[in-house]
Parts: sequence; structure tokens; C-alpha cells
Amino acid sequence: MRVPKVLVDFFKREDKFLILTHVNPEPDALGSAIALSIALERLNKKTWLFNRDEVPEIYKFLPGYEKIRNSLPSYVEDFNLVLLDCNNLKRAGIEHKLGFKSSAVIDHHETEDGFGDIRWIVPDAAATGLLIFYLIKELGLNIDNDIALNLYSAIAIDTGTFRYNNTNPEVMRVSAELIESGVEPSYVANCLYNMWSRNRFSLLIMSLNTLELRDGIAFTHVTIEMLRKTNTKPPDTENFANFPRMMGDVKVSVFLRQDGEDRWKVSLRSKDEVNVAYIASEFNGGGHKNAAGFFINGDLDTVKNLIYEKILSKFTIGFNTKA
Amino acid sequence: MRVPKVLVDFFKREDKFLILTHVNPEPDALGSAIALSIALERLNKKTWLFNRDEVPEIYKFLPGYEKIRNSLPSYVEDFNLVLLDCNNLKRAGIEHKLGFKSSAVIDHHETEDGFGDIRWIVPDAAATGLLIFYLIKELGLNIDNDIALNLYSAIAIDTGTFRYNNTNPEVMRVSAELIESGVEPSYVANCLYNMWSRNRFSLLIMSLNTLELRDGIAFTHVTIEMLRKTNTKPPDTENFANFPRMMGDVKVSVFLRQDGEDRWKVSLRSKDEVNVAYIASEFNGGGHKNAAGFFINGDLDTVKNLIYEKILSKFTIGFNTKA
Repeated sequence: MRVPKVLVDFFKREDKFLILTHVNPEPDALGSAIALSIALERLNKKTWLFNRDEVPEIYKFLPGYEKIRNSLPSYVEDFNLVLLDCNNLKRAGIEHKLGFKSSAVIDHHETEDGFGDIRWIVPDAAATGLLIFYLIKELGLNIDNDIALNLYSAIAIDTGTFRYNNTNPEVMRVSAELIESGVEPSYVANCLYNMWSRNRFSLLIMSLNTLELRDGIAFTHVTIEMLRKTNTKPPDTENFANFPRMMGDVKVSVFLRQDGEDRWKVSLRSKDEVNVAYIASEFNGGGHKNAAGFFINGDLDTVKNLIYEKILSKFTIGFNTKA
Repeated sequence: MRVPKVLVDFFKREDKFLILTHVNPEPDALGSAIALSIALERLNKKTWLFNRDEVPEIYKFLPGYEKIRNSLPSYVEDFNLVLLDCNNLKRAGIEHKLGFKSSAVIDHHETEDGFGDIRWIVPDAAATGLLIFYLIKELGLNIDNDIALNLYSAIAIDTGTFRYNNTNPEVMRVSAELIESGVEPSYVANCLYNMWSRNRFSLLIMSLNTLELRDGIAFTHVTIEMLRKTNTKPPDTENFANFPRMMGDVKVSVFLRQDGEDRWKVSLRSKDEVNVAYIASEFNGGGHKNAAGFFINGDLDTVKNLIYEKILSKFTIGFNTKA
């Protein structure tokens, strides 16, 4: 992977960086931001990490997570903006104008947005963490233990620990290097998958109890009432959409999280052949081929029917209708 | 990894090989055996693959699985025995004497058994499939698509797709090469994890609904009635014991499957520090440190109390009693 020279020069030349990433941050966003910040500080640069949302409890195993702030610096105009794992300010939860000095975008999501003075957007890259790995090496720095753990976690989450179709030889070789820099893969896997709270697990069971199967499509949901009953929060539903995919004849898993009286956050997960980014875009959402999402208004049954019809209208074949 | 010269010479010199592996074969056993057989046949050697048990339906995605026979050749004495992924004939289900020509053992399990004229036993290797990878290259052969898929599946199952603590840089780099030889990681992951029947998934949900947590111990169970209702069979409960381990404060997961009026098959799963083989042995069962099992008679409540008391009596510390 070739890092654009203009990007390397930007980091070498400038001194103050405001690193932003998307709302509801997960380890690819968090790990990329923290790793880049650690690296830049080793070059005696000043960094300010901002996220609109709190770092979820479950991701506080990432070394340096406490660097991420909930507020912007007073003099934004002194900072160069670095937008990671997303490619427009809206995704970072910034609705107003920011008076930053200049800006760079590093991301692996498809985009038609033109934001950013410097843009390094590689949709083929499995994770933004992979891009940050190359960038840090290009800046002439070693991958130390903390950087490695952040970047490995970024890659692990975005490849489903090497289970998704973005897993390729490059992903494996970079991960090999990160393990050599001190990462214990089983530690990361336990942090990512085996540190659920009892309440979150109870919520998962509740959600699985709502399972409805229609042609190769699985629907599960979580209501605000269920969150209240289990004393959980929306980020606790992360990954819930993946469970119904365990069934061989489920081609698309639709998970709906209630986000208001008649408002739902929808997560779509699919197997190889079905491109759910296409479905999500029809509802003004976005994402990747096998993992996408959007918001939708309406009561649960209406919303489920709408999504069901949309998927069937786009993918008329390939569903096994047998029980 | 250095392949013993005597082993390479053995495969180059001899002409007929009887390839055996352990009973209840999983992809490391199956994939290693099939890959080696494909390779040897490309050297114009004759191979005979034997397993005492049928290839499980779920593993029939391995290309060449139909080469595995349920019977031994008539003239065993013409064959050189190759024992894979185990290191004594009893593990291969062979209780009688076999009059083979000579023998080689390739395995990654600890052993105190001295069986085999040539022994290549590497307990540090993550999978037997890894050893076969090096052997095939040492025999001067390319890793073709079918060989790669078998070996990748072998490594994937034994590392939990790169989640267990045997995952190391070598595992990642060999896997990178196998992907370059045509393996699609997401295809393998789907075959291994996402081919559950709807009925099996319904049974899992039923089982999770029985969850009871006492100090760091999770109890779940499946009754004969639940198997009947979901039209499933006992092997469908494979892996059920692992799910409650997702909770951070669960140190031991106890899964009970009803096996008769007042009889239960108990599966224990633990995290690193707790040795459940020790608990199982107290009930005349056995297993490994983090995965063990036994049979027990009694009604459900009595049996759960007995197991709970036994675990607490052996492990007085380390449990988080907070909800």
C-alpha cells in the first residue's frame, strides 16, 4: 500500500492536529485515532482527539483511550483536522462550521463526498487501521506495543477476526507484524467477544427471542423498553445483527434498535452474495457490502415490511424458502 | 519450521500410504489427511485414507472428503502407515494389531506414547495442518486450491479463526500464503460457523432462556422435550456451552443436556485460569483444562446444586459476585 506523499508531508510539516472520527466509535475508529495520536506525539506534534460520543466501556481496553475528549479545543483554527474512518463531518457528529487550518481524510468507506484538502480513501482496505499502520511506518516510526494493540484491534473488529471477505493476504501479514510487536491475539479476541456484561447478554437473549424468519431474511429487534429493563445502552446492541447469520439459510439479518417513539436504527448483515450497502442506500444509509445501516421512521411492523419488500425487490433469487 | 529429512525421504521413497487420523474427526484431522493425500497422488503415490467415523455432514465442504473410507485395505502389509493429528492407534479407533510396512506420526498433541518409526510431533504448532503445509512444500509441490482450502480449514478450526492463544505470526503468514493459493477466508468461516439449521438455532435460544447465574458460574440446559419440540438431535448442542462464556464475569459455563429421565450429559467450559478437567474428574469425567465433561444422574436442580458446590469448593477465589 502506497501512502500519498502529500499526506506524509502534511503530518511532517504541520504541528497541531485535531483528530476526529465517527459517532458511535468502534475499535477501527478508536484504534486508528489513538494509534495515530501516539505516533504523532512521538514526533513532538500536538494532538487533540475528539469524539462526540463517550468511549464505550467495552473498548476501554485500548491503551490510550482516555486521550479521547468530548470537547473541541478553544482555538480550532490553530489545528489541522484529521478525519478518520469516515469522510464527512456529519458522520463525526459535527453539524456546524469548524474553522480549522487545513484538513486530511483517511478512510476506507466508499464516498461521493468531496470533503478534505487531502483525501486518502481506499475502499479496498479492510480497515482504516491498516492505512494508519502504513502511514506510521512511512513517518519513520516503530510500531510499539500500544500502537500495535490499537491497530490490531482495529483490523480484528473490521474483519470479524479474519472471518469477513475483506480478509486478504495483506491483512494477515500486517497482523503478523502487529503480533510480533507484542499483541496477543487471544487477549484481543477475549476483549472484543468475551467481556459482555450480564445485562448485555440478557438483552441479547431478549433480542433473539424476537427472531422472525421470512424467506432468507431474519428480523430481530430491541426496544427502548428492553434497554430500560436490562439497564443497557444502545452501544450494547453492537454485533447483535450477526447472530442470526449463523443459520445456513439466512442470507440477510436485519436488526432494528428502537431510537425513538417511531424511529429505528437498522443494521443489515449479509452473506457474500447479497450487497446490503445497496439496500441501505435506498433508505439514505450506507456501509459496506455485507454490513450496512440506516435510520427509518415508522412503527415496527410497517418498518419490517418495508425493509422486507425492499430486499426482495432487489434480490429476487437465492433465497431458500424452505423451513 | 524445519521438516525432518527422514520424513521427507520416507514420502519420496515409499509408494503406498495408509493415512489414518483420529475418531470424531474435525477439520484439522480431515484437512491434513486430504491435503497430504492429494499431494502424494501428484507424486504418483497410492494413498488410502481411513477414518473409523463418517465425515460429519458439516465438514463435507472440504474438497476431496469423499476420499476418506470407512474400511481398511485388504493388504495392510503393503502400506506405510501415516498417523495424523493424533499419536497412537487407539485414538484412531484401531484396537487390534495392524501389519503395516512402516509408520510415521505427524501431530501437534503432547504425547508420552512412543508409537511410530518416524515421529514429527510439534506441540507448539497451532495445527497439524501447518505441519502438512511445510511437508508438502518440502516435497517440492505447489499448494494448489484444494490443498490450500483443506489446510486453511485445518488451521482455522484449531485457532478458532485466529482467536485462540496459539495464533502467532507464523500462523498468520502461512494463512496469507493459503489465501494467495485461492482460499476465501469468509467462505471457510461461513462453512465452519454459519451453516446452522433453523431448528438448531431455535434450540440455542431455548437453551439461553434457561440461563442461571450463580457467582461466576453460568448454567444453561436442554431437555429431551426441547430436542423433541425443535426436531433436533444431541449433536446439535455442540458448542452451546461456549455462549455464556461471552460474559466477562463468567468463569465457568455449565451446560447440561438431558440424556434420560434423570440423567444429564454435562459440558464445562472455562476461561484460562479455571481448570475444569479437575472438576470433571471428580465426577468420573475428563477433558482439557478449559473444556471437559461428564455424565451425572439426578433431577436438574439437585445436579446443578452438586456441580455448583463442587466448583465453589475447588475454586474459592476469582469469582466476581457482583451482578
